[in-house]
Amino acid sequence: MPILPPLSGRDDAPVRVVALGGGHGLSASLSALRRLTSEITAVVTVADDGGSSGKLRDELDVLPPGDLRMALAALCDDTDWGRTWRDVMQHRFSSKPESAGSLDQHAVGNLLIVALWELLQDPVAGLRWAGALLGARGQVLPMSTVPLTISGDVLEEGANGELVRRRIRGQASLASAGSSALVANVSLEPRNAPACAEALEAIELADWVVLGPGSWYTSVLPHLLLPEMRHALETTPARRLLTMNLATETNETAGLDAAAHLEVIARYAPDLRLDAILADPDTVGDLRRFEAAAARLGARCFFGRVGVGTGRAVHDPLRLAAAYHDVFTTYDSDEPSS
Amino acid sequence: MPILPPLSGRDDAPVRVVALGGGHGLSASLSALRRLTSEITAVVTVADDGGSSGKLRDELDVLPPGDLRMALAALCDDTDWGRTWRDVMQHRFSSKPESAGSLDQHAVGNLLIVALWELLQDPVAGLRWAGALLGARGQVLPMSTVPLTISGDVLEEGANGELVRRRIRGQASLASAGSSALVANVSLEPRNAPACAEALEAIELADWVVLGPGSWYTSVLPHLLLPEMRHALETTPARRLLTMNLATETNETAGLDAAAHLEVIARYAPDLRLDAILADPDTVGDLRRFEAAAARLGARCFFGRVGVGTGRAVHDPLRLAAAYHDVFTTYDSDEPSS
Repeated sequence: MPILPPLSGRDDAPVRVVALGGGHGLSASLSALRRLTSEITAVVTVADDGGSSGKLRDELDVLPPGDLRMALAALCDDTDWGRTWRDVMQHRFSSKPESAGSLDQHAVGNLLIVALWELLQDPVAGLRWAGALLGARGQVLPMSTVPLTISGDVLEEGANGELVRRRIRGQASLASAGSSALVANVSLEPRNAPACAEALEAIELADWVVLGPGSWYTSVLPHLLLPEMRHALETTPARRLLTMNLATETNETAGLDAAAHLEVIARYAPDLRLDAILADPDTVGDLRRFEAAAARLGARCFFGRVGVGTGRAVHDPLRLAAAYHDVFTTYDSDEPSS
Repeated sequence: MPILPPLSGRDDAPVRVVALGGGHGLSASLSALRRLTSEITAVVTVADDGGSSGKLRDELDVLPPGDLRMALAALCDDTDWGRTWRDVMQHRFSSKPESAGSLDQHAVGNLLIVALWELLQDPVAGLRWAGALLGARGQVLPMSTVPLTISGDVLEEGANGELVRRRIRGQASLASAGSSALVANVSLEPRNAPACAEALEAIELADWVVLGPGSWYTSVLPHLLLPEMRHALETTPARRLLTMNLATETNETAGLDAAAHLEVIARYAPDLRLDAILADPDTVGDLRRFEAAAARLGARCFFGRVGVGTGRAVHDPLRLAAAYHDVFTTYDSDEPSS
């Protein structure tokens, strides 16, 4: 580590990257980015209401910690210390079948993060302590310091073949709304929730902001639904990279090809200009349609095989790191975007 | 830190101390000892079956972690890092009243220790990692690597004034058996449970072993009930100090004065010789009776005001450290005991 030669940003300093997302997609992105630079800020969705995170959010009135924990684990230092505490953070208890099993849903790291929050009464400070324990590179921040709720309409085929519109509230429900649904009118509550100030500052000071990969409506889009965050992304002097998913057909995005994914971005953030879009060539579908949608966002397309190559739609951290490296260095000698 | 000048043991090295006990008594002893030396081994009872520890022991088939966690916290390094992680370890979640509240019984440190045990599959290694997180001085070891169960007879006054003998199984039940009871025939299961090998080695290599203070039957006595541990305590070349409690009249020891506490030790470990007994003068009761009982154990008595002085029967760490210091230095120039 670093596996690849260090990138030089302005003034030969390490490139400053802000990666926005949630869940496994953000983890993959961070696992790649930490091979390129130590100047990483992860900005993480806080709308999860399922599983261990949902329970803790509900019981203890805190941010859902799960996606933050996964981001920390992905940035974890590659030492015995880092690996052991990462494994502890990711560990889930497996109660005996005959017991009440109150613990078997919780990742230990979720409990640790929440304990730090309760003690320090500050979500950002708590995450800083958790990051210090792991020796994590960079920092992990929540997109907002208040828990968010995501809602969306799904359009489903009714019994008589007509389209039925149904409002779905909550990330867990929306993400599993069913493969025959189309998602529309996605919104966050509270509508004018504050963005995390440290996240806005990091976006302002970055060389690159990287959005995605991840569940399109529940991990990527939320960052564009928070007004302060969307404005920061629109106005930062940093370059903007969007990383496409390896599988376009998910529960959330049934019927959407890669170009339609870009149109979702354009619809919810019409003023957002992108510099680059990174996609695996196998997942693009109609190339001309995709490149046209990219051009409408102002972006140049980069194609690279960034999957693990086993048929599973999972990013390979090293391949993704190499692709990020290629994108970043393409712009290295250019003037910053305006 | 250290508050007091360092003690020199043999070869001018820090004095090597093994402190045996459980619960708050052991915590108090460790809080004092860490002011005197960095060479501390805590050997902790593992018979607890109540509260968070009891639940985890039952649900996850592990050692009860609570007393081990408290010992670690007491040895915690006095830095921002150490204090923060100590506070996290000791933190208990407070669920909202309307929630199921599955978490509100558990100390975070208990969950962390159990996670390390599940990952590393080794109780001693898990405690070493937890100690490293806290920057704890010395090491914390379980008295046995298997969970133990303590049982005892209680003698109660029946309805017609006759004495009724009742067998009570489990530390939580025994500790709360009621203030009118006399405890007898205390035993551990499994009867020939292995003592922790690292604990036996530490006792063999120590300059001093310190037994007590603590709940007499459930925190102090168990160390003498495990055959390997009792043998190690009887045969170590280390000097042996017994620290008396500040309150003799507890649920467990109703009707027993300080001298009777010593007779309990003599009854269960007739071959154990002590070098020193440390007691607060206010708690000794009949002084001649106490000194006679001490003499039968081979011990010299040291008296010192070691309570917090507020009326509560709680040891003051600094006063206890000063008293330990006085005891240790009294023997400093002597030959080791045979």
